[in-house]
Amino acid sequence: MLTYYYDIMSQPSRAIFQFLKANNIVYKDHPVAIRKGEHKSDWFLKINPMGKVPAINNNGFILTESVAILKYLAMRYVVPDHWYPSDLQQRARVDEYMAWQHMNTRFNAAGLFWEEVMIPQMTGKPVDKTTLDKAVSQLDNTLDMLQTMFLKDQPFLCGDNITIADLLAKHDVGPQTRAPCMPTENVLW
Amino acid sequence: MLTYYYDIMSQPSRAIFQFLKANNIVYKDHPVAIRKGEHKSDWFLKINPMGKVPAINNNGFILTESVAILKYLAMRYVVPDHWYPSDLQQRARVDEYMAWQHMNTRFNAAGLFWEEVMIPQMTGKPVDKTTLDKAVSQLDNTLDMLQTMFLKDQPFLCGDNITIADLLAKHDVGPQTRAPCMPTENVLW
Ligand SMILES: N[C@@H](CCC(=O)N[C@@H](CS)C(=O)NCC(=O)O)C(=O)O
Ligand SMILES: N[C@@H](CCC(=O)N[C@@H](CS)C(=O)NCC(=O)O)C(=O)O
Repeated sequence: MLTYYYDIMSQPSRAIFQFLKANNIVYKDHPVAIRKGEHKSDWFLKINPMGKVPAINNNGFILTESVAILKYLAMRYVVPDHWYPSDLQQRARVDEYMAWQHMNTRFNAAGLFWEEVMIPQMTGKPVDKTTLDKAVSQLDNTLDMLQTMFLKDQPFLCGDNITIADLLAKHDVGPQTRAPCMPTENVLW
Repeated sequence: MLTYYYDIMSQPSRAIFQFLKANNIVYKDHPVAIRKGEHKSDWFLKINPMGKVPAINNNGFILTESVAILKYLAMRYVVPDHWYPSDLQQRARVDEYMAWQHMNTRFNAAGLFWEEVMIPQMTGKPVDKTTLDKAVSQLDNTLDMLQTMFLKDQPFLCGDNITIADLLAKHDVGPQTRAPCMPTENVLW
């Protein structure tokens, strides 16, 4: 039995959700509404003491961190090899992107969203222009790097086929940013 | 042929260095002195366009990101299984820590070092007490989580044996912080 704890508003949650759907993996759906504070409730802190989604429970084995969860699912279930290639160097490229994105794509995309949407909403104050410009330029740098280091002239981040790295990237930058067109669009959603 | 690009002042560089030594992996040593700006030199930007160490070149296959490098080396060379266990759930636990540490151990330990050492050195101004207190308390929270989520009452972060996760943790928090005693101390150095 696999239980999936997530909030569909959360980018890493959506990446795993898409992976589960694309591979017809059977799971028990367990939404955790961050806006209602459910991620800090006693029952959920027993699942993840960090109080963060996503998380899974696979027959008592609890796992957090989207990168670790995606890799675990790709190994645990029978899914096409392209998602997390067994070829050592192709796999290392996927691991490289997934390590890189924490402090780059994810950090800077979330940073911009925070400055542009969350802070003004929480404080009722207009967006601070200088801070916003800085966040935009940091995300631009990250997207340039994403293009130079990973995407290059390939159809997908790590080569000719879609991998779990593309799922993370897609949900971090989303269609609303000036990201290079994420080719995962045509896989689902 | 394996070439290793690193600066011994860099925490992730030291973790890989320790892994190479502990496993007697033969490699060509290529220091990159950050203090001399060598990481932004033309020749090194051809290796890593991000201008960051560590990086490896294995017969033309160039890889960056310490987490991806450690995993690649553990699979590519014949090393004891405990470093990166082939058991799926044990491996997932190592992956979980290595994903978690980016925004936690690594982020907050580097943040404190930056506030306490780097900024005063670069600006000549004394440490700002409020900022420092905040950085200390963030690292404390991270170390509490590291204890609760990972170390628990185990001898090593992910269980009974040392893994590549311990190497990263050791060099991030180091003996100078109030980290839980990192048991990697007695393996090397
Ligand atoms: N590195 C984690 C990040 C998890 C994370 O930050 N989750 C957010 C939602 S996107 C969350 O639960 N935030 C609630 C909180 O931190 O209070 C992963 O990739 O799974
Ligand atoms: N996420 C990377 C971080 C690499 C990194 O930040 N390296 C630092 C030294 S610890 C560096 O090269 N800094 C030089 C710079 O950014 O200019 C990893 O784990 O390998």
